[in-house]
Amino acid sequence: MTQCYLVVWMGSVSELRPEDIVRYEEDGPKVVLLDQRRLPGKVVYLECESVAQLAEAIRDLAIRGAPAIGIAAAYGIALAAETDQDVDEAATLLAGSRPTAVNLPWALDQMREEPTPAHARALHDREVERCRAMAAHAAELFHPGTRALTHCNAGGLATGGYGSAVGALLAAWEQGLLERVWVDETRPLLQGSRLTAWELEAAGIPHAVIADSAAASLMAAGQVDCVVTGADRIAANGDTANKIGTYALAVLAAHHRLPLYVVAPTSTVDLSTATGREIPIEERAAAEITSRFPARNPAFDVTPADLISAIVTEHGAHRAPYSESLAAFA
Amino acid sequence: MTQCYLVVWMGSVSELRPEDIVRYEEDGPKVVLLDQRRLPGKVVYLECESVAQLAEAIRDLAIRGAPAIGIAAAYGIALAAETDQDVDEAATLLAGSRPTAVNLPWALDQMREEPTPAHARALHDREVERCRAMAAHAAELFHPGTRALTHCNAGGLATGGYGSAVGALLAAWEQGLLERVWVDETRPLLQGSRLTAWELEAAGIPHAVIADSAAASLMAAGQVDCVVTGADRIAANGDTANKIGTYALAVLAAHHRLPLYVVAPTSTVDLSTATGREIPIEERAAAEITSRFPARNPAFDVTPADLISAIVTEHGAHRAPYSESLAAFA
Repeated sequence: MTQCYLVVWMGSVSELRPEDIVRYEEDGPKVVLLDQRRLPGKVVYLECESVAQLAEAIRDLAIRGAPAIGIAAAYGIALAAETDQDVDEAATLLAGSRPTAVNLPWALDQMREEPTPAHARALHDREVERCRAMAAHAAELFHPGTRALTHCNAGGLATGGYGSAVGALLAAWEQGLLERVWVDETRPLLQGSRLTAWELEAAGIPHAVIADSAAASLMAAGQVDCVVTGADRIAANGDTANKIGTYALAVLAAHHRLPLYVVAPTSTVDLSTATGREIPIEERAAAEITSRFPARNPAFDVTPADLISAIVTEHGAHRAPYSESLAAFA
Repeated sequence: MTQCYLVVWMGSVSELRPEDIVRYEEDGPKVVLLDQRRLPGKVVYLECESVAQLAEAIRDLAIRGAPAIGIAAAYGIALAAETDQDVDEAATLLAGSRPTAVNLPWALDQMREEPTPAHARALHDREVERCRAMAAHAAELFHPGTRALTHCNAGGLATGGYGSAVGALLAAWEQGLLERVWVDETRPLLQGSRLTAWELEAAGIPHAVIADSAAASLMAAGQVDCVVTGADRIAANGDTANKIGTYALAVLAAHHRLPLYVVAPTSTVDLSTATGREIPIEERAAAEITSRFPARNPAFDVTPADLISAIVTEHGAHRAPYSESLAAFA
């Protein structure tokens, strides 16, 4: 399968609008994605003229982040309908591209009744609105001088605009509550050092990238006030699947009596999954870690609800017991 | 400063003798090092004809691992004496090459009275003997079917032969007690995926490399029975400085009720340092993590003694209170 690449834009990430991250173009028609694998070195767009190409782009992480792949899949359903492909087959193909984020099946379900480009764009708009609402709620959890630590990329690139965890950092920064951000580089694919650092640099927020394994000693040295992450799927009881390494941060934060805040839209909350045990964890190719020696490469882990201080959705900061506080809104 | 490289050997790591890792050659004279920065892709030797070259090789990690840099420094003192350089100046230069491992000043002190190649070789031999003794003691801590997790490289490459933590794994494997090893890749310089995996492959021990941040979820899944690491400096109270990330593993192991064993020779025990707070922690160049964004790159962290189940030296497995059990032998 060939995918068409097109370099069309060389500006700063701070100029990125939601439609610069993923969009539908009637002319084609096609779904156009900012290829996140090549950031920050190259700003390159990937044009998907078929659902198969789009599913491959999602699987290969050209677009990633739970809300963003949900939005991309919504545009994919519109593409299928507009090009007279079978919408159910398209949904099956897209749903199978990555297993952990619940936003993918959620968005496909949302699109079922009205598989149009306009509906996909409305879904995209609502996700970005959710981010702004979440960010406002999450900023209330910050105190002046907060030094936050974040993992992976839960920024605008991951959500189709503004960001969940990074959105919270942006809002806290605008309110003068944020002193600096520690950015886990996030092995194996370095979404932290490639994407989050790029976004924070554009926003002018003081930050430093660290090896993932250095977070613990920064906590011990009293240089971290809270941990803020996004989520790929939140079970009904609050157990949260997110990028591999989040669970380690949760244990470390608890040991150092630091709060862990999960910031995610309700499209990431899956009330039909009772606990984290039932969340499917994607195992990716060993070659992402090493091509020379045997490797294990789980892409996500599950953080038990009792290690999470608050789950912030667009409705506010939910506290334990999450089985009640999440069910009230999701 | 130029350093002479010489490819002289392309065999397997399993054939590596102590003198293949670091040695003194009268012909020159020179100190010859296996350049560990280029492993496992290239087996290349680095010839240091001056103490300044050797100090640079240590600083740049051509040779690394606390016991190995102590041994290299001992050969450096012999080189200074044989080439009529000032031995005290040489010792100062070598001592300043890296700050955290106490083996460096320890070896320099050992060489003071008799700065000869024969004395340096005897020191090297004794370090390897210590490794074999430690390994035998440490293997007694393993049970049949043990799945061990290790961090960085505490193998023969790090100790001048046989290894400390990896030595323990070799001994446990020979005794049929080891089922498999999880190898932290160990960012930023990947000593785990480059060096430890190479050593375990040569020994035929089943192993898999993991992202450092994946250790926690393997523990939660019940796939880890113990954590085994080396050390760069052990304070009198048992607090242990080791490769950045060791402290995180210690907290995670305690949370999952798993033992953490530190395996190190008494040359790594520093009774003159009371606690971990007084151990100098090397901060390396940010470019080792990312050249594009600001970064922090502490190379070591300190694990408090109360998170360590046993410290194994050549005298046996020391238990808490370490201020007594270490002082009895070191």
